[in-house]
Amino acid sequence: MEFDSIVTNGIIVTASDVLPLGIEIGITDGKISCLGTSLPRDESTKIIDAKGAYITPGGVDSHVHFAQDNSPTGDNFVTGSRSAIAGGNTTVLAFASQLKTATSVLPTVEDYHTRAKDQSYCDYGFHLILTNPTPEIMSKELPILMSQGITSVKLYMTYEPLKLGDAAILDVLMSARSLGFTTMVHAENSDIISLITSRLEAAGHSEPYFHAISRPQIAENEATYRIISLAELTDTPILIVHMSSEVAMKHVRKAQTRMLPIHAETCPQYLFLLSERLKGNEQDPFEGAKCVCSPPLRHDPKDLDAMWQGIANGTFTTFSSDHAPSTYDHSGGKKLGLKDGIMTYKSIPNGVPGVETRLPLLFSHAGQEKTSRLSLQRFVQLTSSDPAKLYGLEGVKGNIAPGCDADLVIWYPENEIEGGVVIEQKMLHHGVDYTPYEGMTVRNWPRYTILRGKIVWDRDGGGVVGGVKDGQFLVRGKGKIVVGKMGQEATGMLSGERDYWR
Amino acid sequence: MEFDSIVTNGIIVTASDVLPLGIEIGITDGKISCLGTSLPRDESTKIIDAKGAYITPGGVDSHVHFAQDNSPTGDNFVTGSRSAIAGGNTTVLAFASQLKTATSVLPTVEDYHTRAKDQSYCDYGFHLILTNPTPEIMSKELPILMSQGITSVKLYMTYEPLKLGDAAILDVLMSARSLGFTTMVHAENSDIISLITSRLEAAGHSEPYFHAISRPQIAENEATYRIISLAELTDTPILIVHMSSEVAMKHVRKAQTRMLPIHAETCPQYLFLLSERLKGNEQDPFEGAKCVCSPPLRHDPKDLDAMWQGIANGTFTTFSSDHAPSTYDHSGGKKLGLKDGIMTYKSIPNGVPGVETRLPLLFSHAGQEKTSRLSLQRFVQLTSSDPAKLYGLEGVKGNIAPGCDADLVIWYPENEIEGGVVIEQKMLHHGVDYTPYEGMTVRNWPRYTILRGKIVWDRDGGGVVGGVKDGQFLVRGKGKIVVGKMGQEATGMLSGERDYWR
Amino acid sequence: MEFDSIVTNGIIVTASDVLPLGIEIGITDGKISCLGTSLPRDESTKIIDAKGAYITPGGVDSHVHFAQDNSPTGDNFVTGSRSAIAGGNTTVLAFASQLKTATSVLPTVEDYHTRAKDQSYCDYGFHLILTNPTPEIMSKELPILMSQGITSVKLYMTYEPLKLGDAAILDVLMSARSLGFTTMVHAENSDIISLITSRLEAAGHSEPYFHAISRPQIAENEATYRIISLAELTDTPILIVHMSSEVAMKHVRKAQTRMLPIHAETCPQYLFLLSERLKGNEQDPFEGAKCVCSPPLRHDPKDLDAMWQGIANGTFTTFSSDHAPSTYDHSGGKKLGLKDGIMTYKSIPNGVPGVETRLPLLFSHAGQEKTSRLSLQRFVQLTSSDPAKLYGLEGVKGNIAPGCDADLVIWYPENEIEGGVVIEQKMLHHGVDYTPYEGMTVRNWPRYTILRGKIVWDRDGGGVVGGVKDGQFLVRGKGKIVVGKMGQEATGMLSGERDYWR
Amino acid sequence: MEFDSIVTNGIIVTASDVLPLGIEIGITDGKISCLGTSLPRDESTKIIDAKGAYITPGGVDSHVHFAQDNSPTGDNFVTGSRSAIAGGNTTVLAFASQLKTATSVLPTVEDYHTRAKDQSYCDYGFHLILTNPTPEIMSKELPILMSQGITSVKLYMTYEPLKLGDAAILDVLMSARSLGFTTMVHAENSDIISLITSRLEAAGHSEPYFHAISRPQIAENEATYRIISLAELTDTPILIVHMSSEVAMKHVRKAQTRMLPIHAETCPQYLFLLSERLKGNEQDPFEGAKCVCSPPLRHDPKDLDAMWQGIANGTFTTFSSDHAPSTYDHSGGKKLGLKDGIMTYKSIPNGVPGVETRLPLLFSHAGQEKTSRLSLQRFVQLTSSDPAKLYGLEGVKGNIAPGCDADLVIWYPENEIEGGVVIEQKMLHHGVDYTPYEGMTVRNWPRYTILRGKIVWDRDGGGVVGGVKDGQFLVRGKGKIVVGKMGQEATGMLSGERDYWR
Repeated sequence: MEFDSIVTNGIIVTASDVLPLGIEIGITDGKISCLGTSLPRDESTKIIDAKGAYITPGGVDSHVHFAQDNSPTGDNFVTGSRSAIAGGNTTVLAFASQLKTATSVLPTVEDYHTRAKDQSYCDYGFHLILTNPTPEIMSKELPILMSQGITSVKLYMTYEPLKLGDAAILDVLMSARSLGFTTMVHAENSDIISLITSRLEAAGHSEPYFHAISRPQIAENEATYRIISLAELTDTPILIVHMSSEVAMKHVRKAQTRMLPIHAETCPQYLFLLSERLKGNEQDPFEGAKCVCSPPLRHDPKDLDAMWQGIANGTFTTFSSDHAPSTYDHSGGKKLGLKDGIMTYKSIPNGVPGVETRLPLLFSHAGQEKTSRLSLQRFVQLTSSDPAKLYGLEGVKGNIAPGCDADLVIWYPENEIEGGVVIEQKMLHHGVDYTPYEGMTVRNWPRYTILRGKIVWDRDGGGVVGGVKDGQFLVRGKGKIVVGKMGQEATGMLSGERDYWR
Repeated sequence: MEFDSIVTNGIIVTASDVLPLGIEIGITDGKISCLGTSLPRDESTKIIDAKGAYITPGGVDSHVHFAQDNSPTGDNFVTGSRSAIAGGNTTVLAFASQLKTATSVLPTVEDYHTRAKDQSYCDYGFHLILTNPTPEIMSKELPILMSQGITSVKLYMTYEPLKLGDAAILDVLMSARSLGFTTMVHAENSDIISLITSRLEAAGHSEPYFHAISRPQIAENEATYRIISLAELTDTPILIVHMSSEVAMKHVRKAQTRMLPIHAETCPQYLFLLSERLKGNEQDPFEGAKCVCSPPLRHDPKDLDAMWQGIANGTFTTFSSDHAPSTYDHSGGKKLGLKDGIMTYKSIPNGVPGVETRLPLLFSHAGQEKTSRLSLQRFVQLTSSDPAKLYGLEGVKGNIAPGCDADLVIWYPENEIEGGVVIEQKMLHHGVDYTPYEGMTVRNWPRYTILRGKIVWDRDGGGVVGGVKDGQFLVRGKGKIVVGKMGQEATGMLSGERDYWR
Repeated sequence: MEFDSIVTNGIIVTASDVLPLGIEIGITDGKISCLGTSLPRDESTKIIDAKGAYITPGGVDSHVHFAQDNSPTGDNFVTGSRSAIAGGNTTVLAFASQLKTATSVLPTVEDYHTRAKDQSYCDYGFHLILTNPTPEIMSKELPILMSQGITSVKLYMTYEPLKLGDAAILDVLMSARSLGFTTMVHAENSDIISLITSRLEAAGHSEPYFHAISRPQIAENEATYRIISLAELTDTPILIVHMSSEVAMKHVRKAQTRMLPIHAETCPQYLFLLSERLKGNEQDPFEGAKCVCSPPLRHDPKDLDAMWQGIANGTFTTFSSDHAPSTYDHSGGKKLGLKDGIMTYKSIPNGVPGVETRLPLLFSHAGQEKTSRLSLQRFVQLTSSDPAKLYGLEGVKGNIAPGCDADLVIWYPENEIEGGVVIEQKMLHHGVDYTPYEGMTVRNWPRYTILRGKIVWDRDGGGVVGGVKDGQFLVRGKGKIVVGKMGQEATGMLSGERDYWR
Repeated sequence: MEFDSIVTNGIIVTASDVLPLGIEIGITDGKISCLGTSLPRDESTKIIDAKGAYITPGGVDSHVHFAQDNSPTGDNFVTGSRSAIAGGNTTVLAFASQLKTATSVLPTVEDYHTRAKDQSYCDYGFHLILTNPTPEIMSKELPILMSQGITSVKLYMTYEPLKLGDAAILDVLMSARSLGFTTMVHAENSDIISLITSRLEAAGHSEPYFHAISRPQIAENEATYRIISLAELTDTPILIVHMSSEVAMKHVRKAQTRMLPIHAETCPQYLFLLSERLKGNEQDPFEGAKCVCSPPLRHDPKDLDAMWQGIANGTFTTFSSDHAPSTYDHSGGKKLGLKDGIMTYKSIPNGVPGVETRLPLLFSHAGQEKTSRLSLQRFVQLTSSDPAKLYGLEGVKGNIAPGCDADLVIWYPENEIEGGVVIEQKMLHHGVDYTPYEGMTVRNWPRYTILRGKIVWDRDGGGVVGGVKDGQFLVRGKGKIVVGKMGQEATGMLSGERDYWR
């Protein structure tokens, strides 16, 4: 029983437990081969000393936009994945996006493969964005993609070039039901937003702040209720991405109480940022553009509290960055919304960067103190183990157990990081020229990120020490239902009746 | 102080009170001029003796389909209004229906006027069905129609030739907000129904019973939640017609708790009939077609109980017949769904007749006994006073008070009607060849129906004694909000913000 | 057809309707004998000109403490009823309170009769406070009292000398079920309050403000849920008095949705005043004692909003003053809580005065404007018609209809009262030396209060013009269930099973 | 790296994961020392072959009554613990029960120690039942007991000799808050039950079935809401034992949504048995006595479904047997309720046996099939890991991880147990003469139970092979909050205010 390396002297945190100091992790061939006390070692064994720190599974950021069409991005895979590992992630799931006119998605996926291959510091996979789910794609191409390890799709209920109507969504859900892929949904009512937008436009309200006015919570609430209904009808699991509204979240909670397989995601921006950030400042009235994202930042601190409650009580299944970066000063970025001194929020690319700050921001609030917002186990569930399960990486990513990839984050022990770390743009590794969290203090930061047994981030010893070819494409299996289960009763449908048609 | 006639010796029931025996109603020029004890009379005064019976305001059936395009009907105004007065109604509100291709609705309304003028036994008005709400219609024609007393519109969220998408609905609601008309909505999710329909079709399930399978409660629940959201956003009152689902009803109740002006209607079929009625019988397997209506009859007695609870606890504002009659045996009726022995539920005209049975059916359950389902006051609210208020007839119809039209129903006193009345098709006055309530016993039946001071229905003395020209077109004013109020806060919208756009 | 007097030229408001100008009220022998247009009159007819103002039924304040043991009061019947009519009330329901040691309540009631007889400006009745419901009282004395027109009892779940445990409450409710009296309940968890009180005491927190800390909303929420459960179990209607907490109110609303006969009351102090009022001021740090009442004033403006929502949406059945006055400066009043400069909130007599300001305060927010908090009909329901029905005065008080007592309030027409009326202690007629509403502006004030046809309050013509013997004891009948109905299903009890024991 | 024994060839299930076949468990000195692939072994290593079966942590039955006063029991520690290991348990938590008259609980606990010492096949601990929580006990004795590893107490809201009022409960909760013990509560409203009982008695209804009538769900619902309120007020975690009512369960769920530390337990009888079981049979009308327990079995299959939903969706934290056995035929048992042919349900000892059948019954419904009621991970959480955490055994029991006691259950692989196992009294090892599950088929049964590395149950090789002295007393630490957290806001209490007193 020999190990390539042993991680020692740490406190291992899993989705269910915080193990006592003294449990070592034996690593062989990039995988965890053993958890035990006093593992055997010799001179050739590399010893990684956690010095008493917490060890968590490598972060799985299941919602990032790198090098993507349809979504302005200041990050390609090189810069995006570099930023990811510097923030404790070993896995990212990015998007391959169908153009509305594309009648085949296989070439699209091929294209995205070329954007990532040999250009990623961490492991990666793709969700397929469906904007035009033709019968051929559904019946012939999706099975092919699933066999190639692309086992999740994303749908939009809003954005003109992306959105699907209920009929198309139902088709995809019925297909998901039979093929077994995981369906992500961006839930906002498109027509509500259009109405307000046109009226704001008529009234001359075009500054970035009105982006938040144009997409009220009720648009999210309605679409959330609707997509839950469609999922219930078709008896298919979904994940609702980037939730920001308490009422919408309560719809999810109620569905979960009834054991419907409804999963939900929220993101750092909905825990930490408010719409006042969209108002810019005196020097730069347009600066609020940096925080334009959809759903928008909400108005009231109670909105943040509500999301924190969902983080803590289990309503949210995943906590992702929705890293959708646009540069601020450079052309093609946020300043598309500023022409000749005129601000036009409609033209501002949506999104905020966050793949590097996601884990430290949440970890700062995890623990067992009275002031903690969530337990350490919930931290692991939200950032690593549950997205791994939901997206078909169970047994590979997201866990510290024999057989899994040796993907680990070793944090600083508490005594070494007193006072925390102040987030500054200059310390980050993404391709964007700002961070919305500038100046915020986090309690801790990953000291090491370990990808399949190899240290790729060593904060005190060179920073990014992994290579741009270290990351591998992940051939994912079918996702697992984390919340609820299939076979539940749709409201108003009698037991025997569903067999008539479903 | 002289009266044309005096109604004496009855127990007057209003929306708020059951007055003691002994209060007389003085009638002058077709209007109630006085309520009092021992009203003065001389030989010329016509005395109508209620003999101790309950007296309720004339029924206002605010949802009937007579002589309508887009809606197969076995009743024209003559037969429909004749049936109405025989069942205690003095007012019906029917529909003028825009064809999808019509770019002007003024001629449509003219057309419907000709269908009713001098052909109605009772007073009548029109709601306008909007299937294509162009900007011109909204901005120019609706104000004209409102000035002509047509102050309500109806929208459909389902049925291919009728339905509007969210964007069009929002336009109408914003228009309703500024013009002040009342908006009725048929709330079922169209795409859900289409999906199931196509799958049932593929599976060869086409008998009438599958009509009920094809429109599950979840389709109603979703559309109800959605239309409430759109009404909340636009701060506009709506009435959701013919509700049949408990979950949907709870959405309404919650909105009402928050003081949103959300009104709801249910109908006799959702209190008394279950989907098993769609299964036909051995002699005539197609007979279930008689009970095809939308939303469909539900499956479980608990569904009926839920609607009764909404009747009693105030959730429902109106109780209408949705009289949408098709003959069964004649051509152009229900048998459109039966060709060469093949049953095709999709081809069966929707709807059941009920304008004549509406009041007796509900009155049977009104009272103060332990077994009563609702109070007498709620009976008056649901069937007469609240629809009158909601549709702009306050002070004219729906009340027994000085100044109002002398529209009255005098029931039999309890001692004269022991054992009740068995409903039979042969005793009814509509143009349809069946009633879905055949064989049911009601506790009482209107002895007299009085329209503007004139007896038009005298059950023991000639039956229909009114004339086909007795009914007048009602120039209605703006409807009044009966439940909740405008100016409420949309969820997720801060107080100051709505002024930006609304 | 002759009238003693005619009220003309007003807008009559009832529980269901706002009648148009022009309906006159004919009064004969102190009763309303006629409502009609152009009533006949001669020289002997007294004409009361409302000048275009609103006319509402005389106020029924169903919760006042006059001349009561167990409840410190600065008002006897003379001063209390004088204050009542000056504020638009024609009926008050006060309390006869059993001493814990009293084994018979008949002498108690006799005693209270002597306190009121020939000493009241308005009509009055008594509720019986039961602090020791012995079997004899329940089975023998209550039937006697009911036959004498005392048809309601009040129970306390808190206050050491008054409170009953669940077992005693259940006994009373089972008795109410069989005898038919109306049961009022003060719902706060006594032990919660005791715990906090003893700990505050230990910590030296004794200023008036800590009264509000010592009785948190959760004490009301728990007791409310409990008493609803006991009422549901025993299938008996109750009225929960002076509610102040949103969560508790939601329990009531849910019960009402299920058609349980659960009635609720709130009071002006819970619509207008916050706990900061308990903090006193620099000159007089004890001044907050004026606002010590139980439940206490709550902390947050949202608490007030919640009560307003219950006022508007129908959750509350009655709006009473809970006039429980103590003088501030005089001995035996609020200053019992101030000894040698030491403030002790536990020793401050509970309660605020309010019988005179109740109607003007609520009327100020009633109407049809966007800013109105409730409709005029709801105003009548809450302040007059529903308490009349609930406490056995249907057909006598609370309505403007033939046969009822001619009890009316005529308000100033809007054009005569521009700018409203500023409330000042010096204009009030109670026996207390302050009002908690000092300085607040109300929109209107009763111009005339009419008691059984006689003007007893004429603001512009002498003020209190009635006599101290004008008021009569009201022999009340059985109260009527206003909300819900009996015979509902207790949760978890099968239909057939209740017959085993209930 | 040497192991005393290795468990190989099994599928390890933990609270969060189902690990793939091939992970071995290395055991040293009774503890798990290693999880890994291909662990080193030599001749001296004992190999336990799981043959492909699931391996779960040893069952922790946190609610059993063995050899207890105040609770008739047919089991002492020898028979009870023997039954426990035969059903897959390695830990039981039993009760030491204070007599109402006892002013010290230290001797009580000593007494119970003698009842268990050297007489238990499995490890064990004690909860202390407090029936008279004097200040001395709270302040002086409980700290001593906690230092001795007795870190949990149980309170009763019902049963005359056991119940505490709200004031006493609040005292205990405040003490729990400062000392950190875990508080279990039996939540039924005592006075409701007394009322019904006395009325049933008067009506002559005394057969066992009326036990279920006498304790309706509303008694549980009310008490549950009340105890949650008291826990919220005092900011103290509780566990509500043996829940059986859907409404009560929903109170718990809502509290958990708000992050209150409210834990809940249910038991096999509330998942599998209905009140019809209380009706006995023709041969033996008293046979229903076997199923008399409190709360009672409920009436409707929907009640069972509701409990299953709570099992699946996470509302329940623990699933215990509440093993409270009375013999049926022997003296001192159930037949105390049968005298001279007269059945008296009040005299029947409460409780059903179930420590041996608990795990097989629930395991039968755990899995990943559509028909599964819960996941395998939930099975582990409910039966082992969460009770271990809640009761201070984290890191010792309830987990398969290095450092933990080597307590394991090895089930039969699916191919060896086709058709399942029929439960029969004759195969069980308890001291009672019946099982309420007689004749039911379970899918699987523990093949081996391993206690600290030693096989104590070998179904195919001798059955109970452990010794009566194998079990050790567990010195438990402070329990951990599994659901919610402390420091939450009590409704209606402002943030700063609680510091005034709590």
